[in-house]
Amino acid sequence: MGKKVIIVGGMAAGASASARLRRLDEKAEILLLEKGEHISYASCGLPYYVGGVIADRRKLFVQTPEAMKTRFNLDIRTGHELTEISPENRTISVRDLSGHVYEEHYDCLLLCMGTMPIVLDWLKPGPNVFSVRNVADSDALRELATVRRIQSVALIGGGPIGLEMAEIFQGLQLETHIVDLADQVLPALDPDMAAHVHQELRRHNVRLHLGSKAVRAEGGPEGIRTLHLENGESIQADLFILGLGLRPASDPARRAGLKIGATGGIVTDEYLRSSDPFIYAAGDVIQAKNFVSGGEYQFSSAVAATRQGWIAAGNIHGLNLPYKGAQSTFIAKAFTQTAAATGLNEKTLRAGGFPHVSIHLSPSSHASYYPGASALNLKVIFDPRDGRLLGAQGVGAAGVDKRMDVLSTALRAGLNVFELQDLELAYAPPYSTAKDPVNLAGYIAGNAVLGLTEVTHWAPALSGAGENGALLLDVRTDKEFSAGSVPGAYHIALDQLRERCSELPAGREIFVYCLSGLRSYVAIRILAQRGFRVKNISGGYLLYQVLTQDGRLSC
Amino acid sequence: MGKKVIIVGGMAAGASASARLRRLDEKAEILLLEKGEHISYASCGLPYYVGGVIADRRKLFVQTPEAMKTRFNLDIRTGHELTEISPENRTISVRDLSGHVYEEHYDCLLLCMGTMPIVLDWLKPGPNVFSVRNVADSDALRELATVRRIQSVALIGGGPIGLEMAEIFQGLQLETHIVDLADQVLPALDPDMAAHVHQELRRHNVRLHLGSKAVRAEGGPEGIRTLHLENGESIQADLFILGLGLRPASDPARRAGLKIGATGGIVTDEYLRSSDPFIYAAGDVIQAKNFVSGGEYQFSSAVAATRQGWIAAGNIHGLNLPYKGAQSTFIAKAFTQTAAATGLNEKTLRAGGFPHVSIHLSPSSHASYYPGASALNLKVIFDPRDGRLLGAQGVGAAGVDKRMDVLSTALRAGLNVFELQDLELAYAPPYSTAKDPVNLAGYIAGNAVLGLTEVTHWAPALSGAGENGALLLDVRTDKEFSAGSVPGAYHIALDQLRERCSELPAGREIFVYCLSGLRSYVAIRILAQRGFRVKNISGGYLLYQVLTQDGRLSC
Repeated sequence: MGKKVIIVGGMAAGASASARLRRLDEKAEILLLEKGEHISYASCGLPYYVGGVIADRRKLFVQTPEAMKTRFNLDIRTGHELTEISPENRTISVRDLSGHVYEEHYDCLLLCMGTMPIVLDWLKPGPNVFSVRNVADSDALRELATVRRIQSVALIGGGPIGLEMAEIFQGLQLETHIVDLADQVLPALDPDMAAHVHQELRRHNVRLHLGSKAVRAEGGPEGIRTLHLENGESIQADLFILGLGLRPASDPARRAGLKIGATGGIVTDEYLRSSDPFIYAAGDVIQAKNFVSGGEYQFSSAVAATRQGWIAAGNIHGLNLPYKGAQSTFIAKAFTQTAAATGLNEKTLRAGGFPHVSIHLSPSSHASYYPGASALNLKVIFDPRDGRLLGAQGVGAAGVDKRMDVLSTALRAGLNVFELQDLELAYAPPYSTAKDPVNLAGYIAGNAVLGLTEVTHWAPALSGAGENGALLLDVRTDKEFSAGSVPGAYHIALDQLRERCSELPAGREIFVYCLSGLRSYVAIRILAQRGFRVKNISGGYLLYQVLTQDGRLSC
Repeated sequence: MGKKVIIVGGMAAGASASARLRRLDEKAEILLLEKGEHISYASCGLPYYVGGVIADRRKLFVQTPEAMKTRFNLDIRTGHELTEISPENRTISVRDLSGHVYEEHYDCLLLCMGTMPIVLDWLKPGPNVFSVRNVADSDALRELATVRRIQSVALIGGGPIGLEMAEIFQGLQLETHIVDLADQVLPALDPDMAAHVHQELRRHNVRLHLGSKAVRAEGGPEGIRTLHLENGESIQADLFILGLGLRPASDPARRAGLKIGATGGIVTDEYLRSSDPFIYAAGDVIQAKNFVSGGEYQFSSAVAATRQGWIAAGNIHGLNLPYKGAQSTFIAKAFTQTAAATGLNEKTLRAGGFPHVSIHLSPSSHASYYPGASALNLKVIFDPRDGRLLGAQGVGAAGVDKRMDVLSTALRAGLNVFELQDLELAYAPPYSTAKDPVNLAGYIAGNAVLGLTEVTHWAPALSGAGENGALLLDVRTDKEFSAGSVPGAYHIALDQLRERCSELPAGREIFVYCLSGLRSYVAIRILAQRGFRVKNISGGYLLYQVLTQDGRLSC
């Protein structure tokens, strides 16, 4: 026999690692422990299973323990939980379903225990209180939602799973509430991009309780009925779903004295080796390196976990493969909209004091004359000193996943915004435009880095404008302007600007906007070359409307 | 006034250049000449307009000369054609619609005349013979196809426009023929990927005449009726569409003594300046640099033309921006399938003697348990010495455009196949899989570069297999094998391979296949570690079936 490797956890990281290790080494003795009933099942598909989008329950099980055992010659034990690690003896204690505890020796240990849901002391899982963590939860929820006649649901936490569940429950005609402590859903997005998602949720009658802390629950023997918020409001519901976030399931590692990071994840070196030389760790249980910032953070991701599992297995086999870090790529579907992000967001950059500028655009997902095109709201963040790409976010009905994947790839390759201009992306009318939205983002950002335009944003523009401040200039058409505009804005349609620019004050700063930012850029160039001090308001009137409806601008 | 710049050609490159130049320079005198009636119209949308997918003719006109004149303060003259250039005098001769010829002086000239269709001496445009080059052609075709009761059409040339037209005419219930001199459609693809497109065309009853030279046409006063092929066959049709390719419209440049390349395009330096210091050129009229090979070639692309126009305008203004080259990114829709490519294909690499290896895969476009998933056929080509990405091709019903754009970006950034493994792409079940198809391609190719598997292909595998040659080994399940297999293949299901590998000959080479290549890779690892000499047949039985149906394998 070869060396004995124990892999703890049979989801993304552990399953990926055990298969890879066997492909590299037919001789190794590989023991895969999983505390649950299933391995490598489609945990990301659970919400869709609850809602019936995935009708066949068997489709959730990508791998069965039996099939994987046979194919990869593994010793797989489901219902077996790691309780203690003894690094000095290179042994672990394992508890099986009957409660029996036994020891196993390892030559090498790989920890892939993933995460645990964050819980509330006062709202424990119960007959009508659930998390959506495993197949058993989902079976129970599916039964509740589709067979029994419940009428309303409160989702505590507005993360991706919360939104997927909201879509599903709305589809089942339930009154649906989302409660979140933050003043936005989808924390990976900045508030200005989350505002697009809020608009979509409200359009589908989801009741949002944002910036709201749930503090107390009330109910009877048959379950919770009322959720009280700190602001005095209360929500009546038949079903409560907990989605408060996840924490690394690193407790046994901590007790064994392995180094644990500030985020609660196991600290590893770049080869995914923990502070003990015979113990590796991979997946959501580790504290990951952020590829873009270089910092350490907690990041739950099936993509990163799968990659880390693959790398850890290689390193256990003696290869020397570094894991280069995670970059927070995320995507979620919310009704007709897709929201996605990659890299650092502005909240993080601001908190870390990193120099950054963001630009917004809303181009067409593909040629506007070809059926099915829709506006794609993009935000791209870069370093104003050299144009290095730092992060991107997108919300829209079509083509968001494609652009975010292109931007993820560009970010990974270390491209700057000028290099986004050079990308030669696939264009035919059903797919894109001759300048793809990613190219356009590169042009807008590149012009800002070169000083051809200066970018401002709605909040500073509105607080900086006024009689003693800057002039707000609207360059849309007469028709657009009269249909609705920003209070106090002066209006000159772009096509009259050259002949009417004498109307503008010579010394005063001018903040220009149009619908989305294209015409205002032309206006900026006309005015700047005539000596005016001008800034382009990123996102234009489209973003103004979304932010206003979301209560994010006071004017 | 500032300097006088004349831009010749008002489509992608010329329109992009004139707007950019004005944004940079309010003082320049800019004259835009266009020989046609329209500028910057949606030429890529013409086939969809013919078919009625785009119902509103006005949607084709992205820009009108009047609107662009006003917005960018340009002197735009449509119906004015460049006839001669006199570099010594810095003048050009222009002929207007009335036939009047006049001279214009320039300080700087930018040539963006695009391409001319390649024509046949014996099949001139006529009442039922068309190219699809401009709005007038399309108006006539639309009338013929939708109003008059024609019954059949022959498309001469199987390029992207030919395929778009085939889809449209099939939708109108016409008997549709495609004739091409090459033994495949879509020359940007390799034959093994074009085979997927042929399958789709045949499934929709398009009659393919490939490897067929059209040599003679016959008809009466009301039009052509019969097309004769060199092989003796003939095609009866009511309508003939010419799509034989394009050549640079560089004749005036050639007559003026500007340097013209082997492809017929105007030669420029990397700043898009021609051999005359006061003349720039951009768009399909130039001989482009290939970013991947470093060679020069003819490449018609609205994306590249737009980018070149933008860069040339910057350089005319005195910026010093290099154009870094084109990379042959292409995409076309063929019925339910999308076909796309980027970079170098195998035909080109083989012809140029570049070392390369290609791999094929057919993963799911997104999580297979989520509705709408379909097989995505990918081919990725790389340098076996260091894994540098050289090109990629894809055909499938969903997600092809996204993966090709990711691969285009990776190619542009100079990534190798190992770096494709690291890409952190957006995953949720409606969008992708935890290992995205691009990651999977990186894993397969990376394993080949590292020697964990050796890749072979169907044609060499079939000619190398046999009693005195290699053994063909099928590792699919019993059920799959009995439903159809490759003649002469030995069968051991993967899950029995460890116990049955003594059945295999020790010294003989073994070529392994499964359905798509995943299980055969596991088999390769099992066998290689036991000392067998093994190769993986790229693309598996899926590709075998497609190639066999396309008549590309003799066995």
